[in-house]
Amino acid sequence: MIGKLISNIRRTNAPIVVGLDPMMGFVPESIKKAAFAEYGETLEGAAEAIYRFNEKIVNATADLIPAVKPQIAMYEQFGVPGVLAFKKTVDLCKAKGLVVIGDVKRGDIGSTSAAYAAAHLGTTAIGSSAFEAFGEDFATVNPYLGSDGVEPFLKVCRENNRGIFVLVKTSNPSSGEFQDRLVDGRPLYELVGEKVDEWGRTAMDPSPEAEGYSEVGAVVGATYPEMGKKLREIMPKSYILVPGYGAQGGKGKDLVNFFNKDGLGAIVNSSRGIIAAWKQEKYAAYGEEHFEEAARAAVIDMQKDIAEALA
Amino acid sequence: MIGKLISNIRRTNAPIVVGLDPMMGFVPESIKKAAFAEYGETLEGAAEAIYRFNEKIVNATADLIPAVKPQIAMYEQFGVPGVLAFKKTVDLCKAKGLVVIGDVKRGDIGSTSAAYAAAHLGTTAIGSSAFEAFGEDFATVNPYLGSDGVEPFLKVCRENNRGIFVLVKTSNPSSGEFQDRLVDGRPLYELVGEKVDEWGRTAMDPSPEAEGYSEVGAVVGATYPEMGKKLREIMPKSYILVPGYGAQGGKGKDLVNFFNKDGLGAIVNSSRGIIAAWKQEKYAAYGEEHFEEAARAAVIDMQKDIAEALA
Repeated sequence: MIGKLISNIRRTNAPIVVGLDPMMGFVPESIKKAAFAEYGETLEGAAEAIYRFNEKIVNATADLIPAVKPQIAMYEQFGVPGVLAFKKTVDLCKAKGLVVIGDVKRGDIGSTSAAYAAAHLGTTAIGSSAFEAFGEDFATVNPYLGSDGVEPFLKVCRENNRGIFVLVKTSNPSSGEFQDRLVDGRPLYELVGEKVDEWGRTAMDPSPEAEGYSEVGAVVGATYPEMGKKLREIMPKSYILVPGYGAQGGKGKDLVNFFNKDGLGAIVNSSRGIIAAWKQEKYAAYGEEHFEEAARAAVIDMQKDIAEALA
Repeated sequence: MIGKLISNIRRTNAPIVVGLDPMMGFVPESIKKAAFAEYGETLEGAAEAIYRFNEKIVNATADLIPAVKPQIAMYEQFGVPGVLAFKKTVDLCKAKGLVVIGDVKRGDIGSTSAAYAAAHLGTTAIGSSAFEAFGEDFATVNPYLGSDGVEPFLKVCRENNRGIFVLVKTSNPSSGEFQDRLVDGRPLYELVGEKVDEWGRTAMDPSPEAEGYSEVGAVVGATYPEMGKKLREIMPKSYILVPGYGAQGGKGKDLVNFFNKDGLGAIVNSSRGIIAAWKQEKYAAYGEEHFEEAARAAVIDMQKDIAEALA
């Protein structure tokens, strides 16, 4: 699946992933009003509103971007109807040819991790049939439980042509509390990075489009570019998913460290910087009712910012 | 909420939580057949079968136990219908007066962690109303992202009388890969334990039933009793949720270390040891069609085993 992600990135010339993390405050009044009129001011109504919001964003940007990253927490807060909106969003994006990275940060042990892997990347066998439960292309995975929590995901990646991004060094201010602690003189995130490299070598994508990259990527925050540089060396065959650009303070010039010399190796996420662009002064002229055009303009600006930084 | 858990434990004299982690292989043919006849051999049919299975287990054991712990991965693998079965299971158990520990192992940062906290422990505001999305009493939380990933959960715990169990030392064989690494000469899990204690002191349950315990508990595997002893000292005000008893090899006598001198401070989980008891030789006489009676017998045996170990 990393091969498909890379070929989408080459086609669009944009190592960008749009985070579909809708909050009700991002959704224009007209969409909320229509959804509430139909479903009431309920979990159903709110979930329908965020789905319709996503639909417009995706339709307005799909030709420019290789991938999307729906953050499942933003859907879970609307209960079962919210989870249905997540599933519909995954389906919509896959139908548009986008690679879907489910930002689910799952992680458990043994049969439980296997169930998560089946839920998000594999299939669930029922009788003589197999069903896709959520069917993302990639999922984010939390490594705290160690290799036997990750192995069931690797198995599904190998069997099903899917991939994962493992949390290594997250973008938040307190990520260092545990991740930066020194173990034998080296920060814990480097040890996790070494494991990512090791896991990846057991799950290579053999397609020519993969250009030697593995199905096991890493999450490393744009807010920590020096650590990114070191991790880039430790995990040469892993794609790095880089959150924290824009709203969290990461800038274009900080991103160079996350890429390999082949110009590949990283994909930069922006969530509210794109989907809530209409609320920024810079894009305010589009107005609430043209929020999707504001999102498109923000994608174009981000693409330029990154291209200039890498030039 | 820890007060309610403790008063349920005192009433039943059973520091036991039943893990509702149904797998299709645990569900008797008659239940599957009926659900498939109604909903087809589909995700809906499977989800309905596991819900009906849960219903019988819960009805047969609710008077003996203080709490249940549904593992959401086992429901997510059945997609949206599975998540609905999870929600129905939570509702059923709460109606029975059981404390519900959502084993969701969520953890993210900032507004995303806030969304998870709202989803599982709080409410989601829509218009002028607030809705419970899933409405568990406790949730398990992964600490890898540090304090600003946990703080949104603490806020909801304080405001909403809810609790969390933070992963500290998990029961699986490779849990030591990162958790045991030495930081300044001490294993990482001890540092996480110290944070649990610190977080807990900001989220005490003021009810008399809480007997001085906090809303922030810890997950420590029964498979590591020596580590449990040390963690018991580090986090005196935290309840310890102990997985790994039974199927994973933890024994009654190993459990003493996880309890405080007041006889409180730990709750021991068993999942397949209870819900799939009918598949064990010991309870085989109940037969597939009386699986819920086998579960009841297994709860009674577990209660005795723990009471003897603590005596």
